[in-house]
Parts: sequence; C-alpha cells; structure tokens
Amino acid sequence: MHEEKHFTSSDLIKDIVIGMSDGLTVPFALAAGLSGAVASNSIVITAGIAEVVAGSIAMGLGGYLAGRTEVDHYQTEIARERLEVEAVPEVEKQEVRDVFSSYGISPGLQDQLALELSQDKNKWVDFMMRFELGMEKPDVRRASRSAFNIGASYIVGGMVPLIGYFITNTPKQGLLVSSIMTVMFLLIFGYVKTRLTGNRPFYGAVKTVFIGVLAAGAAYLIARLIS
Amino acid sequence: MHEEKHFTSSDLIKDIVIGMSDGLTVPFALAAGLSGAVASNSIVITAGIAEVVAGSIAMGLGGYLAGRTEVDHYQTEIARERLEVEAVPEVEKQEVRDVFSSYGISPGLQDQLALELSQDKNKWVDFMMRFELGMEKPDVRRASRSAFNIGASYIVGGMVPLIGYFITNTPKQGLLVSSIMTVMFLLIFGYVKTRLTGNRPFYGAVKTVFIGVLAAGAAYLIARLIS
Repeated sequence: MHEEKHFTSSDLIKDIVIGMSDGLTVPFALAAGLSGAVASNSIVITAGIAEVVAGSIAMGLGGYLAGRTEVDHYQTEIARERLEVEAVPEVEKQEVRDVFSSYGISPGLQDQLALELSQDKNKWVDFMMRFELGMEKPDVRRASRSAFNIGASYIVGGMVPLIGYFITNTPKQGLLVSSIMTVMFLLIFGYVKTRLTGNRPFYGAVKTVFIGVLAAGAAYLIARLIS
Repeated sequence: MHEEKHFTSSDLIKDIVIGMSDGLTVPFALAAGLSGAVASNSIVITAGIAEVVAGSIAMGLGGYLAGRTEVDHYQTEIARERLEVEAVPEVEKQEVRDVFSSYGISPGLQDQLALELSQDKNKWVDFMMRFELGMEKPDVRRASRSAFNIGASYIVGGMVPLIGYFITNTPKQGLLVSSIMTVMFLLIFGYVKTRLTGNRPFYGAVKTVFIGVLAAGAAYLIARLIS
C-alpha cells in the first residue's frame, strides 16, 4: 500500500513529540497541585521525579507489552481464520461476497472474486484479516522501539516543569517559573505533534496547552482544599 | 462487517477496566515512591490525589480531544480521496488494481473491479479509505463516551492505592497496606482486561502486576536516593 503519500514524517520524531508533550502534562499538574499544599520545593521535586519514573515505566513498558499483546491477538485471530477457511470454506466465501456487496459490486463479480481468492489459502486468510476484520499485521519491533522512545521522551518532557522548582526557593516561585516554561514547551510540542499528524497545528497547540493548564489548575485547587 | 463474532464484551466494561488498571498503576507507584522519602501520610495522600486529578483529566480530556482529532483526520483524508477520484480517476483505478494484485487476483478481474467500483463515486471513496488507507470511519460519540468512562475509572482505580495511607499512621505502614491492596486489584483487573481482549488472562494479570510493581519499586528507590 502507499500510505507514505499521506504520512511523511519520521516515526521517531512522532514518538519523541508524543512522549514529551505527555511528559510535560501530568508532572506539571502534579507539581502545581503540590505547590499549593506543601512548604518546600524539595517535596515537589521528589514527588515530581517519582511521578516521572512511574509514568515513564508504565507508559514505556505498558506500551511494549501492549504491542506484544497485539501480536498475540493477531496470531489468535489468524489461526481462527485459517481454521475457518479449511473447515467452512463456503461460509468464508460468503463473507468475501458480503464485503464486496456492501461496495455495490455485482453478484457475478463477487462470485469470481471469492473463487479466485480461495485458490491461495494464505492470501485468502490475509485478505480476510485485513478486509473482513480490519486487522493490520502488527510490527512487533516497531512497537517496542516506539514504546521505548515514548517512555524516554516522557522523562525528558517531565523534567521541564520540575526545573522551575530546582532554580527557585519557594513552591510559589517554582510554580510561576514552571508554568511559564511548561506552557511554552506545550505550545511548541502541541504545534509539532498536530502538524505531524496532518491536522491544524495552531488548534493542536492550544488544545495541548488547554489540557495541561486545566489539569494543573484542578490539581492545584483540590490539593489546596484537602491539605 | 461482523467483528462481533470475535469481540463480544461490552465496551463500557472494557473502558472501566482499562481506566481502573491504569489508575491503579501510576498513583500506586507515586505514593510508594513518596513513602520512602517523606515523614507524613498526609503529603503522600495530597500528592496521590493531585496525581489522580491530573492523570484523569489528561487521560479523559486527552482521549476526548484525540477522538475529535481522529475525526478531523478522517475528514481531511476522505476529502483528498474525493478530489483524487475526480481529478485522476485512472491513477485511483490503478490503486484499486494494486490492492487486489497483492492478493493474487487476476488482471482481468482487477480491471472489472476497478470499473464497477468507479460507477459509484461515494462507494469508491469509501472503498479507498478502508482498503487502500486502512482507515475506519471513527465514531466520535463512542470516542468521547469512552474517554469519559476511562477518565472516571482512573479516579476510582487511583483511590485504591491511597486507602492504605488513609487508614494507617506512617508512610511505612501505608506502603504495606497499599501494596497488598493494589497488587490484589491489579491481579483482578489485569485478568479481566486481558480476558476481554481475548488473550491469556493469567499472563495478562501477571503482566499488569509486574508493570505496577516495577514502576513502584523504581519510584521508591529513586525518591529515596534524591531525598
């Protein structure tokens, strides 16, 4: 297929941008929330780093294992299709006809297609996976590399909102510096992220900042209320 | 299509289980990390709740907006396909032939298919979206409902690891109770989550617990080192 026509950006850059903009959001909001409730920057920093560690492992390892699960799932389904093609070929041929019937293909052509497809059982099964079940063959290497890149970028992104607390003396000052830096970075990464997926980048930038600011504001208010 | 044959579980239950098992992981790890670094349960609880608030907003709102973006992206691509079908119909017909050629369909049948498909431009465009680009029409209502359900379940899941710190007096005791409760819940939700997606549930349960424990262990060690 030639999806390249519609997507030209590098997968690595995409992973980095996704991981960084996610990494900016939750650690920023957590630090903002704590800064309204505790007296010292060191607690905010410790909590922030603990979150970055936990989040990057959950995201990276979670993504890696989800990729493996997707491969398992594909294997299970393809095994089932292989069985069905052997055991109930007429049912499977009818399924081929149904796929094409919904696109207005004539019954005569549907029959010919079902017949030709059934000549090569491997290709028939591949066809059913993609066109009946809408499942693409997952690329397990790509999935693990992607999970690693996103997890690592989450760490880098997550350090940005914490810098404000490193270079100031009180949580209040820290929150100010952290907010300015994080909003700037969220704008940039939101813009790049949306641009890479082929949508309106300004809208994406505003959206990404909006999520971050809303999460931080809510965390701040609730942490103040309960502390 | 009849994907129902392969997936029978309710979407709502799936969202709840995903949100809960994610909600259990990061707040658990954050609280565990902090419990090795601070002297009072109240800081652990404040940080945990701030994380749950931030995480659920990032996840729920992020998921909702991602769903909207997916719809925008589909609209952009379908507009492009409509243009191509009008402007360069012969190129698009060749693309139809290419799709079927890879499944071993004879050139004669490829030509007939391209010809029949080109009779109804709406169906032709739908066909190209699904079979050339592999894009399904996104269901925007489903996406927002799902984002809300996952975000809300994240909150419920995130409260479980914090209970341990509510009912004990020191972070050390809190960590013990929190770990026992969270591991139990992660086992259950990991099992259910994997079962719902049609894979080996015991493996899924172990995997989910493994991610949670690794994230918590790493957060604990690093928080101790820096505090």
